[in-house]
Amino acid sequence: MVKILGINGSPRPYGNTFQALRLALRAAELEGGEVELVNLYEYDIKPCMGCVSDNVMACTYPCPIDDDMVKLYPKIIAADSLIISSPIYWFGVSGQLKNLIDRLTVLENMIYVDGRSWLEGKVAGFIALGNDEGAASVISNLMITVNSFGMVIPPWALAYYVGEGSALEDIKLLLDAANVGRAVTLMSQILKGLRRPPSIWYKADDKYKEFAKTVASEIIKEVDKNIYS
Amino acid sequence: MVKILGINGSPRPYGNTFQALRLALRAAELEGGEVELVNLYEYDIKPCMGCVSDNVMACTYPCPIDDDMVKLYPKIIAADSLIISSPIYWFGVSGQLKNLIDRLTVLENMIYVDGRSWLEGKVAGFIALGNDEGAASVISNLMITVNSFGMVIPPWALAYYVGEGSALEDIKLLLDAANVGRAVTLMSQILKGLRRPPSIWYKADDKYKEFAKTVASEIIKEVDKNIYS
Amino acid sequence: MVKILGINGSPRPYGNTFQALRLALRAAELEGGEVELVNLYEYDIKPCMGCVSDNVMACTYPCPIDDDMVKLYPKIIAADSLIISSPIYWFGVSGQLKNLIDRLTVLENMIYVDGRSWLEGKVAGFIALGNDEGAASVISNLMITVNSFGMVIPPWALAYYVGEGSALEDIKLLLDAANVGRAVTLMSQILKGLRRPPSIWYKADDKYKEFAKTVASEIIKEVDKNIYS
Amino acid sequence: MVKILGINGSPRPYGNTFQALRLALRAAELEGGEVELVNLYEYDIKPCMGCVSDNVMACTYPCPIDDDMVKLYPKIIAADSLIISSPIYWFGVSGQLKNLIDRLTVLENMIYVDGRSWLEGKVAGFIALGNDEGAASVISNLMITVNSFGMVIPPWALAYYVGEGSALEDIKLLLDAANVGRAVTLMSQILKGLRRPPSIWYKADDKYKEFAKTVASEIIKEVDKNIYS
Repeated sequence: MVKILGINGSPRPYGNTFQALRLALRAAELEGGEVELVNLYEYDIKPCMGCVSDNVMACTYPCPIDDDMVKLYPKIIAADSLIISSPIYWFGVSGQLKNLIDRLTVLENMIYVDGRSWLEGKVAGFIALGNDEGAASVISNLMITVNSFGMVIPPWALAYYVGEGSALEDIKLLLDAANVGRAVTLMSQILKGLRRPPSIWYKADDKYKEFAKTVASEIIKEVDKNIYS
Repeated sequence: MVKILGINGSPRPYGNTFQALRLALRAAELEGGEVELVNLYEYDIKPCMGCVSDNVMACTYPCPIDDDMVKLYPKIIAADSLIISSPIYWFGVSGQLKNLIDRLTVLENMIYVDGRSWLEGKVAGFIALGNDEGAASVISNLMITVNSFGMVIPPWALAYYVGEGSALEDIKLLLDAANVGRAVTLMSQILKGLRRPPSIWYKADDKYKEFAKTVASEIIKEVDKNIYS
Repeated sequence: MVKILGINGSPRPYGNTFQALRLALRAAELEGGEVELVNLYEYDIKPCMGCVSDNVMACTYPCPIDDDMVKLYPKIIAADSLIISSPIYWFGVSGQLKNLIDRLTVLENMIYVDGRSWLEGKVAGFIALGNDEGAASVISNLMITVNSFGMVIPPWALAYYVGEGSALEDIKLLLDAANVGRAVTLMSQILKGLRRPPSIWYKADDKYKEFAKTVASEIIKEVDKNIYS
Repeated sequence: MVKILGINGSPRPYGNTFQALRLALRAAELEGGEVELVNLYEYDIKPCMGCVSDNVMACTYPCPIDDDMVKLYPKIIAADSLIISSPIYWFGVSGQLKNLIDRLTVLENMIYVDGRSWLEGKVAGFIALGNDEGAASVISNLMITVNSFGMVIPPWALAYYVGEGSALEDIKLLLDAANVGRAVTLMSQILKGLRRPPSIWYKADDKYKEFAKTVASEIIKEVDKNIYS
């Protein structure tokens, strides 16, 4: 079994960023992944104090800052894959998500203690959504960051949507988000020796489109229920 | 008179990021600017709630979030120039600084109320320092962001240093940081009709080098005194 | 009089990238600018040989490479403002435009001969258009590059459009592109002492919208005529 | 057997960009990879004409442009992994390399013909070197690009060095470049079912350091011989 952790970096618990992430996680489940979604704004995440700049040995797990990262670190450590979903805020991730990224230093920096980053070999996928441009800036920055943590980026690990309205009505976004969920799950399974590589990574056949659309409508209902109840 | 506000995005009140910013502000004073420096980590800055995504009219000054931005907004509104100095955290600004950037949306978005961004015509300069790569990623992201706020970027508005040790021992950084202070001050003066453009923007003559070195040694003494007292 | 040079980095002489640039230049003319547009693909531009890496003094004007840059350098040197319009190719400028950018090193590097970059104090604006994401990556990269040449970026110096269809049917793009033309012209005039700063930079009143729409329809006619004649 | 193609995007056939790439390829050979290195400046690569913007079906292999890409496409199609090594030119890849990247569109776009990108499942690594900042800008841009082609990015797929002097004297660069070669080779072997994932990806033990240093001194001798013969 592989564990896929979805991280929603948007303040909106049920907005586009959440919805696309939820779809990716449903696609991960379809491939046999065990999934969990965290809404980052429900956690108190203080800014990184940059201890590593003074002394690399001053930044080792557990991080001494006292906040809700104590709940998030174990989830991240236990996960085989992370899917990071961010709103596009001024061509970058939200400040809340940036605080999380900065605080992951303590896991990467375990290379100086254990000879190995605690994030090495985990797999990452990325989703970025917003009313205005910047998805590529968000995702390219996340890619180089997590790869510097030692993480793997599988084929087609990115989905984005720029515009107003409901992202889940856009068929390209549906397929891209589903394939992010699929790709991270398959790659984690391959790296754990649980399966062989697929003959094709990006799925876009009619059956898969149907799956993505059906799940999308379920998510929209789920969201409506949560908002209006 | 023009006002230059320096924003230190580092958790270290007296580190390299502070020191280079302090030097830029001293150069701004030399050109007749009135300067102030804020250490961002001394303020409680909560993450932006992205109200603007729901409704552009939901994001108007004053921002309803209750935190120390109430002290920072007036300083930013009163400033003619901002110099943003950031540590390089994973190829981006610190999360604390990203929260500030995101929260400036409320000033930019006044375009929907007043027909004019409250940041339009202000001038910006940038400093980025770190042990590892990423200065250009930090600064290019800040440039497109503040220009989207309506701000002006004068010639040579960037200074960076990547490496360990004291940044103020690097003559290129000294001159670049001083010229950031000089350029933002001159540009604000020009835009206020207080002076004509200089015949040369980037100063690197012997006298200016001497000025930068002298100020650098004063800053290092000032820092030592603050740390050890 | 200020001279505005528009650079079309697209292989299509009459496509969206051209059209938005043409509109920006018309807006520049409205403010009193003298304009010229070059289609970069009509020039043979060889790749930079990176001589500067061997020896900073090995890269001085004129560049020894024998190609059509000999026609472009004088236009760039004579210009007060540049408006760079690029298609979005894989989250970056076109390779042809990148070759131009790399070849501008020889003008910037005159700082080692004359104590002054030959691009210092010139003003820049940016347009990026494409079917897929990446406008912010293109523009932020161009911003840090030209600012490192010593160029000025005036308020609202960016316009972008991502999507299929005709960009000139998008009112936001029309206004943004027109304001790029306006901003670079005004800033060049201010820096030459020809005018005072405007009370407002970004124009979006009804009269200006009408101007932008009228010019857009003229450009579309002009394009149709060129394509079908 | 897996094939690793190294692409040198620098005009210098024996400079730092070449040397670091050569080291990465030697590390790939150590893991059982079959390697080849191409110096991109020895090929005539014309700029992409962007046919895909007119019509997705207008961009299918073989690309109609008549130049040396006819020699490079088969090498790229045959490779299991690519290691792209670029000089840092104004915070981006060289124009010559950008032309190559743009021209790869025709392979990615085969998704519209075959239902599958011809680059899907290939593995990528990245090296960036220069006198001045920008390595992260180069690499993050390449990462999002190749991932959009359907390529895999293995752990620690990046090596960079910013500074003057010989890059191969920097132990961090040596280990990083060697690990790029190692990571792409291992990942290609895993994806072909030729081996299981390693217990540790980033190798930095004494024996590996010794290997990297020995190979580095061999490369420096090889370069000296080529330059002075």
